[in-house]
Amino acid sequence: MQENLMKKIEFVTTIEKMKTIERRTKIIGLDRRENDAEHSFSIATMGIIFQDYAGDVDIDKCIRMLLVHDLVEIDAGDTFAYDTEGYKDKAEREQKAAERIYGILPGELGEDLKRLWIEFDECKTPEAKYANAMDRLQPVINNIYNDGGTWLEYKVSWESFLKRMEPIKDFNDEIYNYVLENAKKYFK
Amino acid sequence: MQENLMKKIEFVTTIEKMKTIERRTKIIGLDRRENDAEHSFSIATMGIIFQDYAGDVDIDKCIRMLLVHDLVEIDAGDTFAYDTEGYKDKAEREQKAAERIYGILPGELGEDLKRLWIEFDECKTPEAKYANAMDRLQPVINNIYNDGGTWLEYKVSWESFLKRMEPIKDFNDEIYNYVLENAKKYFK
Repeated sequence: MQENLMKKIEFVTTIEKMKTIERRTKIIGLDRRENDAEHSFSIATMGIIFQDYAGDVDIDKCIRMLLVHDLVEIDAGDTFAYDTEGYKDKAEREQKAAERIYGILPGELGEDLKRLWIEFDECKTPEAKYANAMDRLQPVINNIYNDGGTWLEYKVSWESFLKRMEPIKDFNDEIYNYVLENAKKYFK
Repeated sequence: MQENLMKKIEFVTTIEKMKTIERRTKIIGLDRRENDAEHSFSIATMGIIFQDYAGDVDIDKCIRMLLVHDLVEIDAGDTFAYDTEGYKDKAEREQKAAERIYGILPGELGEDLKRLWIEFDECKTPEAKYANAMDRLQPVINNIYNDGGTWLEYKVSWESFLKRMEPIKDFNDEIYNYVLENAKKYFK
């Protein structure tokens, strides 16, 4: 009795920790880094906003994917995009986190969300490609509006940056060109 | 050329302000109030999690509604649930905000999002009722896990609290009973 409900409440209190996981990107105009909850809000809303660029994809699946794909960071922490050392055991840390966190949910729901996370990470389906493009675009916009932001702060190279932008390049020419045109002055 | 894209980018930089709008509710276990972006992340994700309580509703519409209904607070500010003075001109402030903020978006998209906000506010459709229940439940969970939280801090009366819980009462008995059972000890 009430077990289903209590598991959901436990999940809600668990995802609360997204509000304490700091990313590197700073909020536009503020000297404060954003957290995972704030980032997830931005990219999920962007999933709605950029839908006319997405072509024939299930936008609502993308929005769900964008809301839940970072939950693994509750246990695994945020791995900075340009941290090559941190990326070495990222997959292992996140796999373990996914088992625990999505596993809190009863029935098929936890499995459904874990599958969305896997799909996002594999980045093969049209939905995952769109979601990945939004996930990459959001910190780019922040860095552009923060006069170079983390690119300057962490001395990111143009080559690393271009590699990071590949999901956007694959996704849409107009957005990719916007990114390059507005970012290039912050790299040597 | 690029006008459609630039309008979307402008919208993304505008909703960034959600990260600076402080609500009264505190994050579970932290002495910090949550902001509107964090709140929106929580309730949109709850929209996924509690779907088996929702019955025959369009869950994805609810998730979109939960993501965008608070954007009016970018201009209108957060009105505390128990602030009767602030509620007097809330509708007028939010109407003006909705025109400006959803109006940034080109084409039908802005109108679509404004309609979702109106539907949420009117709270008549099954989708709006579910979304409102999630919006009310989230701060309740935080207050329960924060030993009374804003209920004690602002000396909220049991009567005001019960009135505030009406969308949850209308939505689901099991969740309403959970709320009453766990909240009542914090009220005289």
